[in-house]
Amino acid sequence: MATVPSVSNSITVRLEVPATGNAVSAITTAVESSGGSVTGLDVTASGLEALRIDVTVAATSVAHGEEIVEKLRTIDGVTIGKVSDRTFLMHLGGKIEMSSKLPIRNRDDLSMIYTPGVARVCMAIAENPEDARRLTIKRNSVAVVTDGSAVLGLGNIGPAAALPVMEGKAALFKRFAGIDAWPICLDTQDTDEIVAIVKAIAPGFAGINLEDISAPRCFEIEARLREALDIPVFHDDQHGTAIVVLAALMNALKVVGKEISEIRVVMSGAGAAGTAILKLLMAAGVEHATVADVRGVVHQGRDDLNDNLRWIADHTNRSGRTGSLKEAVADADVFIGVSAPNLLDGEDLATMAGDAIVFALANPDPEVDPAVARQTAAVVATGRSDFPNQINNVLVFPGVFRGLLDAQSRTVNTEMMIAAARALAATVGDDELNPNYIIPSVFHKDVAKTVAAAVRDAALAAASEAPAPSRPTPGIVGTLDTASFPAVRL
Amino acid sequence: MATVPSVSNSITVRLEVPATGNAVSAITTAVESSGGSVTGLDVTASGLEALRIDVTVAATSVAHGEEIVEKLRTIDGVTIGKVSDRTFLMHLGGKIEMSSKLPIRNRDDLSMIYTPGVARVCMAIAENPEDARRLTIKRNSVAVVTDGSAVLGLGNIGPAAALPVMEGKAALFKRFAGIDAWPICLDTQDTDEIVAIVKAIAPGFAGINLEDISAPRCFEIEARLREALDIPVFHDDQHGTAIVVLAALMNALKVVGKEISEIRVVMSGAGAAGTAILKLLMAAGVEHATVADVRGVVHQGRDDLNDNLRWIADHTNRSGRTGSLKEAVADADVFIGVSAPNLLDGEDLATMAGDAIVFALANPDPEVDPAVARQTAAVVATGRSDFPNQINNVLVFPGVFRGLLDAQSRTVNTEMMIAAARALAATVGDDELNPNYIIPSVFHKDVAKTVAAAVRDAALAAASEAPAPSRPTPGIVGTLDTASFPAVRL
Repeated sequence: MATVPSVSNSITVRLEVPATGNAVSAITTAVESSGGSVTGLDVTASGLEALRIDVTVAATSVAHGEEIVEKLRTIDGVTIGKVSDRTFLMHLGGKIEMSSKLPIRNRDDLSMIYTPGVARVCMAIAENPEDARRLTIKRNSVAVVTDGSAVLGLGNIGPAAALPVMEGKAALFKRFAGIDAWPICLDTQDTDEIVAIVKAIAPGFAGINLEDISAPRCFEIEARLREALDIPVFHDDQHGTAIVVLAALMNALKVVGKEISEIRVVMSGAGAAGTAILKLLMAAGVEHATVADVRGVVHQGRDDLNDNLRWIADHTNRSGRTGSLKEAVADADVFIGVSAPNLLDGEDLATMAGDAIVFALANPDPEVDPAVARQTAAVVATGRSDFPNQINNVLVFPGVFRGLLDAQSRTVNTEMMIAAARALAATVGDDELNPNYIIPSVFHKDVAKTVAAAVRDAALAAASEAPAPSRPTPGIVGTLDTASFPAVRL
Repeated sequence: MATVPSVSNSITVRLEVPATGNAVSAITTAVESSGGSVTGLDVTASGLEALRIDVTVAATSVAHGEEIVEKLRTIDGVTIGKVSDRTFLMHLGGKIEMSSKLPIRNRDDLSMIYTPGVARVCMAIAENPEDARRLTIKRNSVAVVTDGSAVLGLGNIGPAAALPVMEGKAALFKRFAGIDAWPICLDTQDTDEIVAIVKAIAPGFAGINLEDISAPRCFEIEARLREALDIPVFHDDQHGTAIVVLAALMNALKVVGKEISEIRVVMSGAGAAGTAILKLLMAAGVEHATVADVRGVVHQGRDDLNDNLRWIADHTNRSGRTGSLKEAVADADVFIGVSAPNLLDGEDLATMAGDAIVFALANPDPEVDPAVARQTAAVVATGRSDFPNQINNVLVFPGVFRGLLDAQSRTVNTEMMIAAARALAATVGDDELNPNYIIPSVFHKDVAKTVAAAVRDAALAAASEAPAPSRPTPGIVGTLDTASFPAVRL
């Protein structure tokens, strides 16, 4: 867990202190001596004898927050009132809502957006189903689908407990790409059922974002849905991560002056993210990759290979290595970990090739301490927000879907993902690129737009090879103008 | 179809006319002589020789709109430009959207609404699933679920073509009751599949609104979902209609001074709406009911009775009538039609009892011409907006769900529906009640609030007999205050 005070473990403590004396400074001292940070202090009421103060404190954990409150309680003359948890307060009642784009003021409005007028719009779509992309929310809607089986690092916590993450994802879709996403949390973890359900709900959406579904089911679910549906299906835990890693690797290779086709990559982790990263890196030109999982290097001689590990054994590890991850990293140019904390130490990294690149992405605790890694590696990235070079899916999924939706794409393929990675990498200019800045902030204003444009172009190029039916939007003379609806609403 | 010009068949014609002469008045004359109405006329550009004018015209149908355009084309010196259909314009890009309630401005915001902060909220729900109603959108979310099998009067047009109706429904949920509804249009019409899908998506919603699913599948789907789920399931085509009809009947009986237990009711239509109306009326005190379908009066001697008709035969028609609908209405106090156009005429209605009540709800063309009906009946209602006493589900479903959600109800039952009908009827004061005003406008400001309060109270009363688990919202000291979240957001 986080070792520095974090706003995500932030509490607001209402307390009363004597109006005279040094109670206010005693509060700050108590918080700081307990290892917390005061991030806000408001006197909300003041009287002759007492002040009421709301003090907001960043702690390192829930237990630490409780410790800080107990420390505050020991200050002379202090009375502790309500203690609220800022993160929980933000979640009360949910984080997203549905809004009507049109006012419904009177019977005329009602007669156009609902009966009887809506019937003509329905019939237009019945006659030409493609018009659903023009006349309904389908054009800009994405379903964020989970079964709650692999939520963050929390494991199989089920659909209801996954909802706060899916709401957050939907909020990020809107914030970064103007997309209307709605969470669909499924009370089943049966592969066949999930496939049937997502197929059935697809008519109302222009894209499916699978989220936090555990491996290996996620591979089959995604593959079957891609086969069945005429809208793109994207498992963000796999491909979002893979795209950001590829973008970061492209820039890291620029920093150290190595070619992607020549590097030796060692990966730790053969789950959903690891496999997707491996495949995308290979599609982008990596020729020498070795993968290790909890049992060590994946090779053809192992007797525990499932379909996924068999694929990996057949397509990686050309030199036929066996043994442990620690042994595998010797002479490697690049280490990429999407596995578990503290698998490697400084001595292991010292055996890597010169100008090594280390992406230790296990969250919250990386495969190797990034501070240690930076002593030997030339470029280090993690999944954490408190170190440079954060590998964060938020950099990718909004722009990818924006591009897919703008192109009305029926699919998402490897070319589109590589285009997204190139575009993301290119947002870091040559004059900005350095070992501590291979990847931009999620708040970099160009990221989503740039990624979206690249994906849109790649999707349109793919579609032009297999053109979809098209006709003008219905209207009496068919001259309705859709130009006023901007493609990218950022 | 509508016989008067309607805004739901409204077009905007861009045209250029000579700057001199009487071209503008010629436009108005042309529209009016064609039977259309000019509802707006904007000069959008003016030059020495020509004016550009956008003229908005209400027509009676699409074909009529085309006729009007052709008539405009014959005016001397007029050039017709773009013609746009106002209803289609309102639907472009869809009618609803998803919004984030919280700003995402910086890394601190991100760390609370998404990772890492969100993990603590997920774990709180994993430990106590009921907290999903406090910490997620579940508390205020309703799924509007259809399979597109019986959309409006359009029939089985499928899920994509149904989407404009479901979006409209969602917009009305927000407009009238502050509810966040999202359309789920299913690409299956298999009863078992629909039941499985709705069960699976339920964790993210506090209620299910089934919509436009054809009979008899809708009965089984609703019954099985009510059995399976711990959130209310409400098929609006059945129960929304039934509640409005019961409310209207309560007030109509007041107008004519008859008692519900003594009246003889004849119904036309034994489909989803008809059956639901029948059952609710009987639950509310109707003792003498007779139902006719396309084969005439439903009685125990018929050899074509399915489960639903068998139930009706066993529970209605005490006097054992057979024969046609026309025969059945003789001496009836109340006729309620949810069937087909023009089944009855003035002579049939003349055989009814004195002070007859006629609800002819087939849309757009009622079972009997309402103008004819008013010559003999004391009170007449239809489903149309261009006659008094419109029976419109919009009067009911927003308030019903608002009440159910506020009570965190796990079910919806007949008592709650009767409470809703009583509350709706009571919005028409004794001083307002008359034969042309037995039911308020959908824009009456008290309707949703009043219905919601009655349903909430009935649901809380039902829940207090079988109390649900409850505990405070998690927080460090458990003293978070939810009072600032209003129960009814109207």
